[in-house]
Amino acid sequence: MALDETLLPALLDQGLLIDTGVPGLYCRGAIFEDVLQRFDAFAGRALAAESPEVVRFPPVMPRRTLERSGYLKSFPHLAGTVFTYTGDEQGHADLLSRVEAGADWSSSQSMTEVVLVPAACYPVYPAVAAAGTLPPGGRTLEVASYCFRHEPSADPARMQSFRMHELVRLGEPSVVDAWRRSWITRGLELLGQLGLAVAEAPANDPFFGRGGRLLATNQRAAELKFELLAPIAQSAEGTAIMSVNYHQDHFGTIYGIRTADGEVAHSACLGFGLERVTLALLVRHGLEPARWPDEVRHALWESEATR
Amino acid sequence: MALDETLLPALLDQGLLIDTGVPGLYCRGAIFEDVLQRFDAFAGRALAAESPEVVRFPPVMPRRTLERSGYLKSFPHLAGTVFTYTGDEQGHADLLSRVEAGADWSSSQSMTEVVLVPAACYPVYPAVAAAGTLPPGGRTLEVASYCFRHEPSADPARMQSFRMHELVRLGEPSVVDAWRRSWITRGLELLGQLGLAVAEAPANDPFFGRGGRLLATNQRAAELKFELLAPIAQSAEGTAIMSVNYHQDHFGTIYGIRTADGEVAHSACLGFGLERVTLALLVRHGLEPARWPDEVRHALWESEATR
Repeated sequence: MALDETLLPALLDQGLLIDTGVPGLYCRGAIFEDVLQRFDAFAGRALAAESPEVVRFPPVMPRRTLERSGYLKSFPHLAGTVFTYTGDEQGHADLLSRVEAGADWSSSQSMTEVVLVPAACYPVYPAVAAAGTLPPGGRTLEVASYCFRHEPSADPARMQSFRMHELVRLGEPSVVDAWRRSWITRGLELLGQLGLAVAEAPANDPFFGRGGRLLATNQRAAELKFELLAPIAQSAEGTAIMSVNYHQDHFGTIYGIRTADGEVAHSACLGFGLERVTLALLVRHGLEPARWPDEVRHALWESEATR
Repeated sequence: MALDETLLPALLDQGLLIDTGVPGLYCRGAIFEDVLQRFDAFAGRALAAESPEVVRFPPVMPRRTLERSGYLKSFPHLAGTVFTYTGDEQGHADLLSRVEAGADWSSSQSMTEVVLVPAACYPVYPAVAAAGTLPPGGRTLEVASYCFRHEPSADPARMQSFRMHELVRLGEPSVVDAWRRSWITRGLELLGQLGLAVAEAPANDPFFGRGGRLLATNQRAAELKFELLAPIAQSAEGTAIMSVNYHQDHFGTIYGIRTADGEVAHSACLGFGLERVTLALLVRHGLEPARWPDEVRHALWESEATR
């Protein structure tokens, strides 16, 4: 799976992305951001067909949520925790002298009560649990936020900080399972409307360590994760631009979320990776959106005004 | 300066904000987020009159940018640094057992190359410097992002994670000074159009430690910072919902940014605190935007469709 090494230089050269000096961390130029916002609105109109409850979390969430969620078991190497300085003026002088000398100043920092959001839906589950037993048929929520994963990479499709737009479904197992399967088809249709040649594939998460290999095998065997892949910088099988994940009773058990009939709720989510969709569109149709096919431009730029 | 303690419970009760269990960290409900997005678009139309270069940074930036910026000298207690786990499987088992036991697991974490963005304009200056000498008349950039400040508070107007929408001006000293003064008046007009009774006041930043008192006095004496204040939860003088800051040659010197005639560039910025403006509107007009005065609803909800 070779990386097409011409894409990132082209994006930087044309100002679609701007380098920050840290691998996987980019400033978005006006054209990149406009495409992303237009796709976000396009996807949002499709998600709104489910009449979801709209909630928005900031890019940080309680550390307690990360600790309870199981994320640290599976992905400790991707999680970002937030530290700060809580010392006095003498300690501050020491901190500054270390910074000045280019020395390690990490020992001046203390862990706070917040961490970076690893996927847009993580803060949803405790909020849903706090609201009490689910109504019959469950709940559907729409979330979107910047997410963080510590995986510095030369692949522009693997950013450390990126946006996800998600729907989350909680309810009876049969309801949730049918819902997530239907969204694989709907995702293919939706992305196909934008001229993207998307392939569906069972997938697994990048679990940590040797034990992670077994988790990954089980996840694939149980068909819990599907990805919709489109060509970006990975030449062969493509990169996931949307994923549909079935958590079964994972979050329901952890947070004590119950269905109307008293069972442990199941949950699933679907998410669009907004930077990745933007990159897939740029790779498919070229780096000048003004010259994209009429039907794609109409879907992204003009449909809102005429709907 | 007493805090109105009825506002936050009302916001939570009506689902405008949703508690996360961490002071100063909230989920935004659909109504709160809609008002915020509408104001953001309203402000964006005013900022666009300057034809700024639009760039967007994620909510994390290179640690090196924080180290060079001077922020750690003035505000070490507010800065958020990002840590992660870089160890092996044995260390992972130890991390998990600490989490399980509710013990301190901070020693498992290592400092990464990224930090949280403390104000939307911080990542701009190194990017501008990298682009070379400014053109005659300088440059104007528009930025917006989630910002982080570690200051847990019971005041809903003092969130740990909040959004700023900013214009940044870099150029010759006289150009930058005139520009930032003009925006104090324009900010008052703009916010006044939304029915907000806004007061202008010289201000200072919350510098750290005893030495910070002198910095604050100097900043006020030189009239480098102005805030536009509106009533939110602080009963007396109001809370800053917009600020205009003149950095003089601070960033120009640090990053080596030069004007067309070879002098060190000056810089200034203006920023709207989007959550604070949203709160000020809710306090001024009530918690039900559907019942706000026609002229405010027109400015926020209908002007885009008819422009």
